[in-house]
Amino acid sequence: MKLLLRICYDGSAYCGYQYQPSLPTVQGTLTESMSQLFGTQCLVTGCSRTDAGVHALGYVASVEPADISLRGEEWWKIPLERIHRAAIKYLPSDIAVTGVAAVRDDFHPRYDVVQKEYIYKISDDVCFNPFLRDRALMLGRRLSDRRIETMNTVAVHLLGRHDFSSFMASGSSITDTTRTLYKLETRRESEDMVEISVRGDGFLYNMVRIIVGTLLDTAFDKLSERDFCAVLDGRDRRLAGATAPACGLYLKEVCYAENIVFSAE
Amino acid sequence: MKLLLRICYDGSAYCGYQYQPSLPTVQGTLTESMSQLFGTQCLVTGCSRTDAGVHALGYVASVEPADISLRGEEWWKIPLERIHRAAIKYLPSDIAVTGVAAVRDDFHPRYDVVQKEYIYKISDDVCFNPFLRDRALMLGRRLSDRRIETMNTVAVHLLGRHDFSSFMASGSSITDTTRTLYKLETRRESEDMVEISVRGDGFLYNMVRIIVGTLLDTAFDKLSERDFCAVLDGRDRRLAGATAPACGLYLKEVCYAENIVFSAE
Repeated sequence: MKLLLRICYDGSAYCGYQYQPSLPTVQGTLTESMSQLFGTQCLVTGCSRTDAGVHALGYVASVEPADISLRGEEWWKIPLERIHRAAIKYLPSDIAVTGVAAVRDDFHPRYDVVQKEYIYKISDDVCFNPFLRDRALMLGRRLSDRRIETMNTVAVHLLGRHDFSSFMASGSSITDTTRTLYKLETRRESEDMVEISVRGDGFLYNMVRIIVGTLLDTAFDKLSERDFCAVLDGRDRRLAGATAPACGLYLKEVCYAENIVFSAE
Repeated sequence: MKLLLRICYDGSAYCGYQYQPSLPTVQGTLTESMSQLFGTQCLVTGCSRTDAGVHALGYVASVEPADISLRGEEWWKIPLERIHRAAIKYLPSDIAVTGVAAVRDDFHPRYDVVQKEYIYKISDDVCFNPFLRDRALMLGRRLSDRRIETMNTVAVHLLGRHDFSSFMASGSSITDTTRTLYKLETRRESEDMVEISVRGDGFLYNMVRIIVGTLLDTAFDKLSERDFCAVLDGRDRRLAGATAPACGLYLKEVCYAENIVFSAE
């Protein structure tokens, strides 16, 4: 069986999820910590390749021994709750394990994802807030209720199944650019914080950040509702808004067809 | 006249407010940035000596040229609003200026303080939250409504004018240990966050953090209400609870006898 970790991480200090030699990455850090915990070199496979500076609240990664002969039924030999507690000691304080589960060997944390939800945090405090640096887009001006309403009005046009080419970073080599969005909502979370929630069956490279940048263009009257629809229909990255900064993006949760029961601590 | 800055800072990266050679301090950083901004060596005087890792939401510091001949009526020569904006460029992202004011030359940011308010943040999420590391005490267990009520019940005994010797770090050389507390309240701020607000005319060394540690002892039934009163009456540091970690402490605001009008950005 495979061991699954559900983790939460502050991505500020990492050059993204994916392993890169001699650079701090989430995958590299998890691999090192788990190899130490289990006393054998481990392979760690994640649910998504988050970019440098992107955060995660409910990331899922699998852990297996690199040595195939060591795999098998409950190869970890320690009760899941103890792994949970031990992982806290082996991981740095910017990565936290929030649950541990056991799944069948052919489960794949990335290919088996059926839905993903992201949130994008926007601070609309006019003053710069040092406690939110690297953790939210600092807009530097107010997002009024009316502007948020505009964002929600145009957002409806992206719901459902569409070709999202216009919302994909240029240079991306993916050919099937059709995705389905189930949710795209902007909501005030607190006095100084607005959050955009996006849920879909998958996302193109930089898709959430480009959607956020384009929604903000509608909020500040750079794009009308009609223009916004033309962006989607045009299938051209140059029509959409700027890519919003990585620091505001949080992978909130990934869903699988099967119900995975994680040990709570 | 003197220039006053109202600042907000994340103290995580600093060895406290007060200047120490070759160590990162808030005072050292402010001094360097302001000297660059005004093109002359500046003296920066703060309202309080916050410890390493302590944060501030409404800290006040004065800025003057070190060269006395450069002082005088509006020596800064730039409109206050422009200083405000320029300061953002010269300061690192963990220190933000939230207001600028001009005060008379004999104003002292520390000696003229008549009241100070601190907040102490306690995360009672059972899971470790990476986004709150260095920013709150991580209790690792729930603070129920009943426990918060207990804290508020005993807190009343500290209100008013008392000898707070029991709540002062041992080894402190201060002789007048009488202070007046105006407020000491524990309140749930959000699902996973509890905040303690303390307001007084002044605080002994580590006083807020020792009060917090002792209140938590009453919450978790290590001390009864009667024991708690005995701590205050005993005037002995050994009777009180542990010093709560610096990372949960925020200097919220300092008040002066006169009303200082800060330029908002």
